[in-house]
Amino acid sequence: MEAAEAKPVVIKVAALCGSIRKASFNRGLIRSAIQISEESINGMEIEYIDISGLGMVNTDLEVDGTFPPQVEEFRKKILEADSILFSSPDYNYSITAPLKNAIDWASRPPNCWADKAAAIVSASGSSGGSRLQYHLRQIGVFLDLHFINKPEFFLKAFEPPSKFDGDGNLVDEEVKERLKGVLVALHEFTLRLQNKH
Amino acid sequence: MEAAEAKPVVIKVAALCGSIRKASFNRGLIRSAIQISEESINGMEIEYIDISGLGMVNTDLEVDGTFPPQVEEFRKKILEADSILFSSPDYNYSITAPLKNAIDWASRPPNCWADKAAAIVSASGSSGGSRLQYHLRQIGVFLDLHFINKPEFFLKAFEPPSKFDGDGNLVDEEVKERLKGVLVALHEFTLRLQNKH
Amino acid sequence: MEAAEAKPVVIKVAALCGSIRKASFNRGLIRSAIQISEESINGMEIEYIDISGLGMVNTDLEVDGTFPPQVEEFRKKILEADSILFSSPDYNYSITAPLKNAIDWASRPPNCWADKAAAIVSASGSSGGSRLQYHLRQIGVFLDLHFINKPEFFLKAFEPPSKFDGDGNLVDEEVKERLKGVLVALHEFTLRLQNKH
Amino acid sequence: MEAAEAKPVVIKVAALCGSIRKASFNRGLIRSAIQISEESINGMEIEYIDISGLGMVNTDLEVDGTFPPQVEEFRKKILEADSILFSSPDYNYSITAPLKNAIDWASRPPNCWADKAAAIVSASGSSGGSRLQYHLRQIGVFLDLHFINKPEFFLKAFEPPSKFDGDGNLVDEEVKERLKGVLVALHEFTLRLQNKH
Repeated sequence: MEAAEAKPVVIKVAALCGSIRKASFNRGLIRSAIQISEESINGMEIEYIDISGLGMVNTDLEVDGTFPPQVEEFRKKILEADSILFSSPDYNYSITAPLKNAIDWASRPPNCWADKAAAIVSASGSSGGSRLQYHLRQIGVFLDLHFINKPEFFLKAFEPPSKFDGDGNLVDEEVKERLKGVLVALHEFTLRLQNKH
Repeated sequence: MEAAEAKPVVIKVAALCGSIRKASFNRGLIRSAIQISEESINGMEIEYIDISGLGMVNTDLEVDGTFPPQVEEFRKKILEADSILFSSPDYNYSITAPLKNAIDWASRPPNCWADKAAAIVSASGSSGGSRLQYHLRQIGVFLDLHFINKPEFFLKAFEPPSKFDGDGNLVDEEVKERLKGVLVALHEFTLRLQNKH
Repeated sequence: MEAAEAKPVVIKVAALCGSIRKASFNRGLIRSAIQISEESINGMEIEYIDISGLGMVNTDLEVDGTFPPQVEEFRKKILEADSILFSSPDYNYSITAPLKNAIDWASRPPNCWADKAAAIVSASGSSGGSRLQYHLRQIGVFLDLHFINKPEFFLKAFEPPSKFDGDGNLVDEEVKERLKGVLVALHEFTLRLQNKH
Repeated sequence: MEAAEAKPVVIKVAALCGSIRKASFNRGLIRSAIQISEESINGMEIEYIDISGLGMVNTDLEVDGTFPPQVEEFRKKILEADSILFSSPDYNYSITAPLKNAIDWASRPPNCWADKAAAIVSASGSSGGSRLQYHLRQIGVFLDLHFINKPEFFLKAFEPPSKFDGDGNLVDEEVKERLKGVLVALHEFTLRLQNKH
């Protein structure tokens, strides 16, 4: 159905980080994901979306259906994305407050997350973030996100040898390969879901 | 792209009931789902798969990669299905043993559930089964099931007026309409996922 | 073992609200809980702890083991409490960002929540908050909180007739009675846990 | 309050295994727990309760408030116990069918689990059983079980070097020490909860 000279479809991925620490390992995972997608995945553009400046969610701040400027901008970014990459540690066996805050802002009607594909990666403590991920998947039911099932990506951030350099950049090749596996699966699942006839 | 005389695609749905009580309301939901699909959904065949005769899961019973005869037959039914309809109460805030047992048998390698679409409906106590449903969705991550997100279907089975007649048949028209909404969404999501180019 | 003139033990309860909206129904539940405890429960003092002014959790803000002033004050309040009353809606099937943020701040070492009794009440949408409550209970495992099991308290905030007046005050007597049941159970469980011989 | 010659209180622990495989590692954990309690914990008797012979839960089998003989016997064992030790792998990211089945039978009114202390240990696949444990804790809310929070015990059963000998007996001293930590915490929490004035 496409003309021969048709450009390849490019899917846009919004990448959100659950930690707002400067040296966050999960922020490092996103930097690495961007580099991997640029170097070796055709048709996938990942953009890091900063959520650290959003104020605490409070529906009193919605006036006549409009949101604070930073929230409006954030919601627009989510709306424009084809799929979402979450990179987050777990804090106290669940989602982090900054990430939940961003999710809640963009879920206010009209829900910006609806019907998008999504994936989660985590660099975290002893469990590698698995507890957070299942809570986030439950949140996704209401948001109407379609998470890939496999591969799952859990990284024990504090186990030696360190997978990150002093600037929080991922330097371990085996972990990069696993991360790439997630991106490829997210790419394929996004395309599969968008094929609406 | 299809020739004009092409037959419509028919998706096959395997329906499993979490309760093995004779008068189970959830069994009634499946009977109603079968009737609804026959009367008003083109291209969807729902078959009820009885799981009450499966022995308790025990890998000691796997010999040279074969399973007990009833398990083999059950696994074959799941493999042949395009998607899965679970109808189950929650027991003690989680999945029922008979349903988990069936799931575990069909998950033994090679995993029979992989990459199928799925939906859950529940007739249950005070919460209408919501607790069971989120546990089942987590199980689905490992099984590689793709659950529809919406509509969710929770039915408070014991709230008056009764939605079922004395034989456990669903008789409430509004509930039937909600059930049909789930089936239509499952139908559409199954087709969408199968469109593999 | 106590002298005859011994004063009754008074347990101190810190009450946290998951929503920072001015007219929050969950804030109304806390006001009602305070009134109920004053009027009809001997030996229980509930104090509302405002969490709306805490900045977003970020370990970069911890300097030499000290926290921002508002966080220090909040942590002190939690440390001094014998038990915790959470009152929260669910947002998108999980915990709210403001509540998670407060929890995370007070969990930083040394963990302020450790070994306290706790209870959760919710005024929320269609499920009455049950999804949030089970996530919060899982968080409590890491925090080392001991939640009462029963009675559970879910209030469908938007079902008519309204249980709250125009100022967000709880006015329904049956709901007040259910809320009192939670407080009595929390009181008893706190005393039971503190009886360390 | 006790006479000087009073015997020490002995708490009785019912130990249940989530797998019914002959060579189950989780069964091995229970054997080890029994040995540890006999050798080094005063006042704690652990009894292994076999659940493999219970038929699949079905309320149709309850006649005039009585249960099948094996169920009656099982329920009696649970009722007589002061606390419960669960040892279970996770199957497909949740509870095993045999364990859920036993739990459901003993939960039928009158609920045999009510107000007992409990702990969970797991030898399992890649996550060491953590996903199962949080589902079991949610089930415990309805059963009215009081789980210890810490220490949690997850054992990656298939990671070299093997922690078990060819007969499924735990042989790793560091793991035995961790297991003992759970038993000591369960012992203390049971005593603490029983101190009802």
